[in-house]
Amino acid sequence: MTGPMSSTPSPLPSDHRASLIDGKAFATALRQTIRQDVQDFRARHGITPGLAVVLVGNDPASEVYVRNKAIQTHHAGMRSFMHMLPESTSEQELLNLVERLNKDPEIHGILVQLPLPGGLDAGRVTNAILPEKDVDGLGVVNAGRLAVNQPGIVPCTPLGCLMLLRDQLGDMTGLHAVVIGCSNLVGKPLALLLLAEGCTVSIAHIHTRDTAALAREADILVVATGSRELVRGDWIKPGATVIDVGITRMQTPEGKSRLVGDVAFDEAVKVAGRITPVPGGVGPMTIACLLNNTLAAARMQVEGAGA
Amino acid sequence: MTGPMSSTPSPLPSDHRASLIDGKAFATALRQTIRQDVQDFRARHGITPGLAVVLVGNDPASEVYVRNKAIQTHHAGMRSFMHMLPESTSEQELLNLVERLNKDPEIHGILVQLPLPGGLDAGRVTNAILPEKDVDGLGVVNAGRLAVNQPGIVPCTPLGCLMLLRDQLGDMTGLHAVVIGCSNLVGKPLALLLLAEGCTVSIAHIHTRDTAALAREADILVVATGSRELVRGDWIKPGATVIDVGITRMQTPEGKSRLVGDVAFDEAVKVAGRITPVPGGVGPMTIACLLNNTLAAARMQVEGAGA
Ligand SMILES: NC(=O)c1ccc[n+]([C@@H]2O[C@H](COP(=O)([O-])OP(=O)(O)OC[C@H]3O[C@@H](n4cnc5c(N)ncnc54)[C@H](OP(=O)(O)O)[C@@H]3O)[C@@H](O)[C@H]2O)c1
Ligand SMILES: NC(=O)c1ccc[n+]([C@@H]2O[C@H](COP(=O)([O-])OP(=O)(O)OC[C@H]3O[C@@H](n4cnc5c(N)ncnc54)[C@H](OP(=O)(O)O)[C@@H]3O)[C@@H](O)[C@H]2O)c1
Repeated sequence: MTGPMSSTPSPLPSDHRASLIDGKAFATALRQTIRQDVQDFRARHGITPGLAVVLVGNDPASEVYVRNKAIQTHHAGMRSFMHMLPESTSEQELLNLVERLNKDPEIHGILVQLPLPGGLDAGRVTNAILPEKDVDGLGVVNAGRLAVNQPGIVPCTPLGCLMLLRDQLGDMTGLHAVVIGCSNLVGKPLALLLLAEGCTVSIAHIHTRDTAALAREADILVVATGSRELVRGDWIKPGATVIDVGITRMQTPEGKSRLVGDVAFDEAVKVAGRITPVPGGVGPMTIACLLNNTLAAARMQVEGAGA
Repeated sequence: MTGPMSSTPSPLPSDHRASLIDGKAFATALRQTIRQDVQDFRARHGITPGLAVVLVGNDPASEVYVRNKAIQTHHAGMRSFMHMLPESTSEQELLNLVERLNKDPEIHGILVQLPLPGGLDAGRVTNAILPEKDVDGLGVVNAGRLAVNQPGIVPCTPLGCLMLLRDQLGDMTGLHAVVIGCSNLVGKPLALLLLAEGCTVSIAHIHTRDTAALAREADILVVATGSRELVRGDWIKPGATVIDVGITRMQTPEGKSRLVGDVAFDEAVKVAGRITPVPGGVGPMTIACLLNNTLAAARMQVEGAGA
C-alpha cells in the first residue's frame, strides 16, 4: 500500500495470510474416530447406537439436511431411523411419536428437524424428548446443564466450533471471546461454552451499538448472524482467531450459486491469525458433532452417567 | 482539584454525586404489593401460598438467612414451613423430604438452603425439587428456561438486580452491560437476563486480563465477586449505573463490624450516575424476590402456565 498509514497500524507483514482452519478435514477425522468407537462399543456391549431423525413437512432444505444426517449416521456404523411425516401432522401425533422413541431401547438419540410447520410448537416438541436422548441439545434440561456447567448434551454447531477452537488454541483461559449473534441454537450456547473455557465473553447482537469496536477487542471472534459479510477486515484484531458460522447462499453474476459466510473473507484473511473458510469451516462439523452426541448418548444410556 | 487533568477528563461536575438506588425502599414496596396480591389470591382461590425452607446442619449464617426468609414469608401472609435437619442427615433422607414436599399440595415453593454440609450433593438435591416449586430457580430446568428465554423461575438475587435496573433505566436495549463475576447463583443468570433485555453483555471473572478496561465500557456495571472494593472509581464510566451485589463483613479499627461491597463506594459515587449502596441496595431485594417467586409459583400451580 502506498496510501497514508491506517490509523491502527497492523503489526502484521503486508503479505500476511491467516492460516485456514480446516473444518472439513477435522470433521472427517472425527467421523473416522467415531466409526472406530462405535465398533468398540458394539464389541463391548453387543449394542449398536441408534439415531432417530424426525422430519415433518416438505421443506426442501430440511429434506437435504435430514438425508445427510441419516447417511452419515449409517456410514459411522450406527443405526439410522428416518421418520418423515406429512405437513398435516398434529402436535399430538408428533408428541406420541417422540414418546414411542423415548421408550424404544434401540433408539439412543432423537432429533426433530427444525423449523416445524406452523401450528406445531417447537419448544414443546423439543422438550418432550428425554434429555439423555436429546442429541441436538436443544431441550431446556440440556440448556440448563450447559448454563450451570454440568455434564449434558451440547448443541452440535457450538460444539463443533468449540472443538475447532480447542484444537487450534488449546487452553483459552483469559482470552477475550466476542460472539456476534445470540440465538439459542448457536450464539448463546457457544458463549456459555467459552465462558466455561475461562474466556472473558462478550455477546453482541442486532441491538449492539458499536459491534465493530467490540469485535476489534476479540482474541476469538465468533460470528453467527446470517448477515452475510457483516464482519469486515478492520473489525478484526490482528492475529485473532475468527470462526465464521454464517452460511448464506447467493447468486454470482454468472448465475451460479455460492456459499458466503458472515465474514468478508478476502479482507479478514489479511488480518486474522486463523480463520474458518465458508464452506469447509464450521459447516462440516455440525453433523460430525451429531454423530459424536449420539455415540455419547448411547454410552450414557448403556454405561451410565460416568461414561 | 488543582492537579493536572486526569487522562480521561470526566464530563461530570467536580461535586457530582451518583443518585442512590434505594433497594431497601424498593423491597419494602414490593413486599407490600406481594402481601396485597397474596390476599387477592386467597380471596380468589381459597388457597394460601406456602413456602417450605429446608436447612441441614448448624451453619450460623444460614440459620439467620433461613429465619429471615421464614419471618418475611409469614409477614407477607403466606404459609411458612421450616424443616431444620441435623448435620448427620443423609442425602437419601433429604431427597425423601424433598419428594414429600414436591407432592404436598399445600407447598408451592421449596428452598433448600445452601451450602449443604459435606457429603450432600447440592446439585442432586436442587434438581430433585419440582421445577414449578423451585423458587430459588437453581435447578437445571429453570436455568435452561432462562438460558433459552422461556418463562420460568429466575434466581432471587439476579431477579432483584433486574427489577432495580428496570425501575431505574426502563428500556435497556443496546446498553452495554458488564457483569463481573459469573457464579451460577448471581453473575451468570444476571448476564442472561440482561441479554434478554437487549443489552450487549460482557462477562468478566477471575481470569479476565483487564477487568478495569472492560468495566470502563459499561453503561451498566454489575459486580458480584465477593472481592471487597474490587472496583475503583476509575473503573467506572462517568454516568454509568452500578449494581454492587457483593457483601463482605469486615472489622473497623474501632472493633465494630460493618458490611462493604465489591465497589469502593466513596470513589464510585463521584463517577457513577446511579449506584446501589451496601447495605441497603441489592441485599434487601433477595428475600423480597423469594416471596415474589413463591407467589408466582403458587399462581402457576393453581391458575396454570399463563399466570
Ligand atoms: N452447520 C452450520 O454451519 C450452521 C448451523 C447453524 C446455523 N448456521 C448459520 O449460522 C447463521 C446464524 O444461525 P442462527 O441459527 O444462530 O441464526 P438466528 O437464529 O437468525 O440468529 C442470528 C443472531 O444474529 C443476530 N444478528 C443478526 N444480524 C445481525 C447484525 N447485523 N449484527 C449483529 N447481530 C446480528 C441476531 O440478533 P437478534 O436476536 O437480536 O435479532 C441473532 O441473535 C446462519 O447463517 C445459519 O445459516 C450454520
Ligand atoms: N442478597 C445478596 O445481596 C447476595 C446474594 C448472593 C450473593 N451475594 C454476595 O455477592 C458476592 C458474590 O456472590 P457469589 O455467590 O456469586 O460468589 P461466588 O460463587 O464466589 O462467585 C464469585 C465470582 O466472582 C469471580 N471473582 C472473584 N474474585 C474476582 C476478581 N478479583 N475479579 C474478577 N472476578 C472475580 C469469580 O470468578 P471465578 O469463578 O473464575 O473464580 C466468580 O465467578 C458475595 O459477596 C456474596 O456475599 C449477595
